[in-house]
Amino acid sequence: MKVAIIMGSDSDFEIMKKAVEVLRDFNIEIELTVASAHRTPGRVREFVENCVKNDVKVFIAGAGCAAHLAGVVAAYTTRPVIGVPIASAPFDGWDSLLSTVQMPGGIPVATVAVNGAKNAALLAAQILSVSNSEIEKKLLEYRESMAKEVEVKSERVMQTFKEM
Amino acid sequence: MKVAIIMGSDSDFEIMKKAVEVLRDFNIEIELTVASAHRTPGRVREFVENCVKNDVKVFIAGAGCAAHLAGVVAAYTTRPVIGVPIASAPFDGWDSLLSTVQMPGGIPVATVAVNGAKNAALLAAQILSVSNSEIEKKLLEYRESMAKEVEVKSERVMQTFKEM
Amino acid sequence: MKVAIIMGSDSDFEIMKKAVEVLRDFNIEIELTVASAHRTPGRVREFVENCVKNDVKVFIAGAGCAAHLAGVVAAYTTRPVIGVPIASAPFDGWDSLLSTVQMPGGIPVATVAVNGAKNAALLAAQILSVSNSEIEKKLLEYRESMAKEVEVKSERVMQTFKEM
Amino acid sequence: MKVAIIMGSDSDFEIMKKAVEVLRDFNIEIELTVASAHRTPGRVREFVENCVKNDVKVFIAGAGCAAHLAGVVAAYTTRPVIGVPIASAPFDGWDSLLSTVQMPGGIPVATVAVNGAKNAALLAAQILSVSNSEIEKKLLEYRESMAKEVEVKSERVMQTFKEM
Amino acid sequence: MKVAIIMGSDSDFEIMKKAVEVLRDFNIEIELTVASAHRTPGRVREFVENCVKNDVKVFIAGAGCAAHLAGVVAAYTTRPVIGVPIASAPFDGWDSLLSTVQMPGGIPVATVAVNGAKNAALLAAQILSVSNSEIEKKLLEYRESMAKEVEVKSERVMQTFKEM
Amino acid sequence: MKVAIIMGSDSDFEIMKKAVEVLRDFNIEIELTVASAHRTPGRVREFVENCVKNDVKVFIAGAGCAAHLAGVVAAYTTRPVIGVPIASAPFDGWDSLLSTVQMPGGIPVATVAVNGAKNAALLAAQILSVSNSEIEKKLLEYRESMAKEVEVKSERVMQTFKEM
Amino acid sequence: MKVAIIMGSDSDFEIMKKAVEVLRDFNIEIELTVASAHRTPGRVREFVENCVKNDVKVFIAGAGCAAHLAGVVAAYTTRPVIGVPIASAPFDGWDSLLSTVQMPGGIPVATVAVNGAKNAALLAAQILSVSNSEIEKKLLEYRESMAKEVEVKSERVMQTFKEM
Amino acid sequence: MKVAIIMGSDSDFEIMKKAVEVLRDFNIEIELTVASAHRTPGRVREFVENCVKNDVKVFIAGAGCAAHLAGVVAAYTTRPVIGVPIASAPFDGWDSLLSTVQMPGGIPVATVAVNGAKNAALLAAQILSVSNSEIEKKLLEYRESMAKEVEVKSERVMQTFKEM
Repeated sequence: MKVAIIMGSDSDFEIMKKAVEVLRDFNIEIELTVASAHRTPGRVREFVENCVKNDVKVFIAGAGCAAHLAGVVAAYTTRPVIGVPIASAPFDGWDSLLSTVQMPGGIPVATVAVNGAKNAALLAAQILSVSNSEIEKKLLEYRESMAKEVEVKSERVMQTFKEM
Repeated sequence: MKVAIIMGSDSDFEIMKKAVEVLRDFNIEIELTVASAHRTPGRVREFVENCVKNDVKVFIAGAGCAAHLAGVVAAYTTRPVIGVPIASAPFDGWDSLLSTVQMPGGIPVATVAVNGAKNAALLAAQILSVSNSEIEKKLLEYRESMAKEVEVKSERVMQTFKEM
Repeated sequence: MKVAIIMGSDSDFEIMKKAVEVLRDFNIEIELTVASAHRTPGRVREFVENCVKNDVKVFIAGAGCAAHLAGVVAAYTTRPVIGVPIASAPFDGWDSLLSTVQMPGGIPVATVAVNGAKNAALLAAQILSVSNSEIEKKLLEYRESMAKEVEVKSERVMQTFKEM
Repeated sequence: MKVAIIMGSDSDFEIMKKAVEVLRDFNIEIELTVASAHRTPGRVREFVENCVKNDVKVFIAGAGCAAHLAGVVAAYTTRPVIGVPIASAPFDGWDSLLSTVQMPGGIPVATVAVNGAKNAALLAAQILSVSNSEIEKKLLEYRESMAKEVEVKSERVMQTFKEM
Repeated sequence: MKVAIIMGSDSDFEIMKKAVEVLRDFNIEIELTVASAHRTPGRVREFVENCVKNDVKVFIAGAGCAAHLAGVVAAYTTRPVIGVPIASAPFDGWDSLLSTVQMPGGIPVATVAVNGAKNAALLAAQILSVSNSEIEKKLLEYRESMAKEVEVKSERVMQTFKEM
Repeated sequence: MKVAIIMGSDSDFEIMKKAVEVLRDFNIEIELTVASAHRTPGRVREFVENCVKNDVKVFIAGAGCAAHLAGVVAAYTTRPVIGVPIASAPFDGWDSLLSTVQMPGGIPVATVAVNGAKNAALLAAQILSVSNSEIEKKLLEYRESMAKEVEVKSERVMQTFKEM
Repeated sequence: MKVAIIMGSDSDFEIMKKAVEVLRDFNIEIELTVASAHRTPGRVREFVENCVKNDVKVFIAGAGCAAHLAGVVAAYTTRPVIGVPIASAPFDGWDSLLSTVQMPGGIPVATVAVNGAKNAALLAAQILSVSNSEIEKKLLEYRESMAKEVEVKSERVMQTFKEM
Repeated sequence: MKVAIIMGSDSDFEIMKKAVEVLRDFNIEIELTVASAHRTPGRVREFVENCVKNDVKVFIAGAGCAAHLAGVVAAYTTRPVIGVPIASAPFDGWDSLLSTVQMPGGIPVATVAVNGAKNAALLAAQILSVSNSEIEKKLLEYRESMAKEVEVKSERVMQTFKEM
């Protein structure tokens, strides 16, 4: 069970590497490529078709501007496709968000927050956890560690507050 | 393997019933309820906890305005949660979309288009298909039938075009 | 020299037929089809490739929501591609406009106003007129008739104004 | 009579500390914590329930992105809840504002301007002043000092103006 | 202890009467007027000053377009002022919301959702409940009845769902 | 001293006639025409030049969509130009407003609210009143009658309120 | 014949001083003050009333956020009021623009571009020029010098272009 | 066969020079000027008329704010006009985009992305390629080189990914 990460431009890797980090924390194998829906439509199709043959169960696609990549990937597979709208000048991701989330009936894209590569990876892990109890266990541990982190941060803020 | 559908108000059923129809077409069992994240926070938590114990693998949450429901459901489970922002007056779903998709790091919501209940159900089927080859087969058939429908519609439009 | 009109759904024909009417007024031959970038990606590619072989010099693509169609057509040809963002509920075309116009560097889409099918056809005629003096002449006549129409309408408004 | 301040993340303290400063100027006792509506839903509920038992009369909740915190706090108490939408990249608080203010009927959140922690504290003081003449008196003094400050600033601007 | 309701135009009463209904359910006495911040600035000031002398503890101000009314009321009193942005053509309340909520530091307006007159009244009741245990009790009953209503509605939706 | 009213299309007269009514109430003479900045650029220029020669002191220009008309009129005269952005589908006047108000340095357009033809006429009257005491007197009477109208409307609303 | 400049905060002077510079270029006398519609409502009213008595013919009001200042000034006078929406974090002037331009029928505000203090001053000069031929002459000279400046800048750009 | 580039201000050259670079790569001759639709309307008209006489087949117009330039150029010629909305503070190009793309029926502007000068030049080349096989060939080579560049960038990203 693998997760594929595809991004429209090499500059998107700055954001998308957060997805890599999370998936590695969950010991999930990754296929990764750069392929533009517009500059290299054939490359996108081939990558998706190869992935489907090679045990990729979930796709994560990150792109900016008129972000067609997640939709185009979704057109070539019935596997779940997670879209990461990437913020870019000058519209700060409004264009990326709408281009990614407002998909027509029949071809869903599971859209996360703008620049939400970390959540995209967690969502991929959640999807795999449906039939993988090890990942499920790790997700529960992850939740607990997040909750603990909130407590630690709260302590720190309360300290500052008291010293004000 | 079940899918739970939760909506914030009975008026949301007009939209959310499209998810029911699609899931039934895929023979996927459904748990359904109305529960408001604000008016009945305890009811939401109980529903989610019961679902997790009862073989629910994916949640679909539909809500409008300051649509917190999907996020609140996601806070109580590590199962994938699909959010359907529901359009409502006067902001036509801009508030619902942002409240649903812009989730902070750690708790993803797989957001579909505003009023996209049909795609939410297809996405749930895609998620289940990762470990269920029967649903996977049905998804491929569904794609083919959509493609054929496009051809039929194209024929009809070309006929009108020729008669203009 | 032909112009191809492609739309993402048969419901878009209500808007796109205005492009048909204008092109026929200019005696420009039309190739027309319905093909969805998401539901039928192969059909879009085939249509574009056939058109390029069959003397189509300009493409007009109309689509709504996450309107990827014009961008996808542009990815398959170096002919000019005109994008018509089509308004649809609930976002009234903001999603269509941004998905169509905010194309990344390298693959332009000549975007007209939301629902601007008429202007898309005029733009196609203007493009063909660069090497076709007959169309150029018709465009100049069209301008003159528009100017006269404004005068007639002004007369009518001034009459109403005087009678107020 | 106390005021509780709750924020979704420690990074929100940069903004929320302005509320601390104002409340201290008014000699109003503060309960403060960091608790995320999504990462620590139980912690939010417990904090609110404890506060209600401990003489907290007004809540101030600050959060960014899909800012559910104020709404979730309001779901657990009938005390007035003031929401501070916190601006965050890339949408500059549009998501925070809509997620905070567009609450459905039945559960109000008293929303102030984006990043308006200072006004949230003043609003809390105004609410307490309904039954506390000391705070009421301080609010009137605060108004007067603001008015005087405007006069001083005006003098300074007029001086610059004359020297131009 | 009274609540004042002020609206910028008689046409706003269609929305604002929901606040009247809720306040009457809570047996809270109401002062009501129509006064425009722009057409009748003196009338607004006099109304506010009279209200403050006559035991009004909370103000609710509803207005549309460049909705200055709540801010202008807040400028004349240190009592809590609740702003109801009223949706109006053509901007559906975006102008009303921003004009009401984005108050500068020093003069808060407790803003509720666009057209949220019902929540404005509930918020007023919450504010009064800080020092009035009877209203507090009614608010808790109101919450319970809302929760029960959700259950009833859920039953109805589940019935429809089963019959589908 | 005359006021010129120019509109981009005969369909704009439905809105612009409110300006006619107000100016006639103030006994201000009107020059009126329909001329499109795009379809009839020469006609706009000629109209403006003739108006300037014929004692027109203020221009009111109403247009929708990419509303260039007011800016183009302002380019041909140093008389004050009032712009009325006219709302049109599908963007409800957001395009008209920005195209009218966001003029670059050097060429101002005095922009009123979307569809605000009535206020455009009042503004024109205010401009003429700077050097015409009769119009100034009428403006003061107009203000008083508006204030009285508010009182009458308030009486009516209070009556309905008491009968509720 | 004077022009009054009023701004809501001393920080607005950074923008509003451009209006001072232009008016001085036109030898137009200026009354200037800082007065907040919310923090000092009485100060605004007094300033406006004094200005009207002292030969002020046009008002320029600059404010940010929920920018009520221009509307409040317009409520106290029938002189033309020019509104300068001032951009401020985090909404970059969208709130200022809508709060300034979307005035209800009866009380117009002549709105210029966000941060458009220079154009506000030019518009004030245009208004005064209706009855002052000296200012009219200066406005024509100003136009000519702007046109010449464009030519000079064009020369410079063409030089750079040739050297590329 | 030439392409004309016109921009509203010398500061736009920073963006528009990318169009110069692309056109030179394609060996397409360029006419270039700075001319403001508002400050120098006559200069715009003369430039367009001269260009049409001098073998200019396509116009590229770049402007910011209330960006009327492309529309005004389009009003003076039936040649294809490509509009480049240029982003400027404070609205980041939303005003430029809407002012450029939302043209009324009859006068199309082929709008590219905000700041999309490079794509404007490519679109101009595509338009000329309809009747120029040399440019057509270069466009195909350009596509191939872009695709290769994507492959190279992908290699580099995959290398970084492996080393993480």
